[in-house]
Amino acid sequence: MGCPLTLYHTEKPEHEDICEYCPYSCPCPGTSCEWQGSLEAVMSHLMHAHKSITNLQKEDIVFLATDINLPGAVNWVMMQSCFGHHFMLVLEKQEKYEGHQQLFAIVLLIGTCSKQAENFAYRLELNGNRRRLTWEATPRSIHNGVAAAIMNSDCLVFDTAIAHLFADIKNLGINMTISKCCP
Amino acid sequence: MGCPLTLYHTEKPEHEDICEYCPYSCPCPGTSCEWQGSLEAVMSHLMHAHKSITNLQKEDIVFLATDINLPGAVNWVMMQSCFGHHFMLVLEKQEKYEGHQQLFAIVLLIGTCSKQAENFAYRLELNGNRRRLTWEATPRSIHNGVAAAIMNSDCLVFDTAIAHLFADIKNLGINMTISKCCP
Repeated sequence: MGCPLTLYHTEKPEHEDICEYCPYSCPCPGTSCEWQGSLEAVMSHLMHAHKSITNLQKEDIVFLATDINLPGAVNWVMMQSCFGHHFMLVLEKQEKYEGHQQLFAIVLLIGTCSKQAENFAYRLELNGNRRRLTWEATPRSIHNGVAAAIMNSDCLVFDTAIAHLFADIKNLGINMTISKCCP
Repeated sequence: MGCPLTLYHTEKPEHEDICEYCPYSCPCPGTSCEWQGSLEAVMSHLMHAHKSITNLQKEDIVFLATDINLPGAVNWVMMQSCFGHHFMLVLEKQEKYEGHQQLFAIVLLIGTCSKQAENFAYRLELNGNRRRLTWEATPRSIHNGVAAAIMNSDCLVFDTAIAHLFADIKNLGINMTISKCCP
């Protein structure tokens, strides 16, 4: 794919995890988009092929998920650009356990794997009615995707009853903050 | 039960909610204790009949739940005394949805209903491995009990996968802070 390195085969898996020449899939969840391309092309693909995704240029934003009562599996996606990087917030509603609808929220870095993401932290917060629920963690790379995080509950997990403690009738606001970790 | 007030019958339900003469049940979850008594007697009942419950005299404590892998429905209980009041932390593991074990953590005030509890806020925090999960809310009165809060997910809710992100092999530490709200 253009990577100029020559490696022993034992070093290959580790390098693939951080190689910028490795093709990236479209990180949009719940779409049938089959686009693949280089890391640098991901952002322009999102801006052109998925125009409905909002992109805010701030460290501290409010993500508003509308119509959270929609039945079935639903995804909400938003982009946030700060510190010279692009981040993607994904909120996914699904029945991981039958009859029990849950919401999963996670932040992905549009960048190579773990090492780059470890320079940042994200914070997701539901706030209102004298209650606050907060999740703080390291972003994942889009290379890893969201499926594994949801499988391991390694994200902000809440059920629809909790969502309704914070939401007005049908819209849920999530405060989202990206920060840079000290080296 | 000793209440000296005379009220119209329409005012009775509202007053019962705050009446100190109303008999209180033993707030220990998951026990078969059938004790009932006055609000003032609750604390001495807990200290004498449920001696295994730890009581710490601090605003800021660490609650250590041991053996979180124990199968079936399990409860952990701890008392915290500060600001001249007694609080009870309950951690309950149960299958609210079949095949999906969840943990529910909540703080109760050993006091009359809502009004007294609204003077306080509690914060429960899981912290470790570059992740933090926080729930902040108003304590419930032991008058209301924990069942309704668990039913409505109006407490810190997390599944066993999340617990294992924070726990060592079998023990989970929960940071618990009580604070006084400004009037």
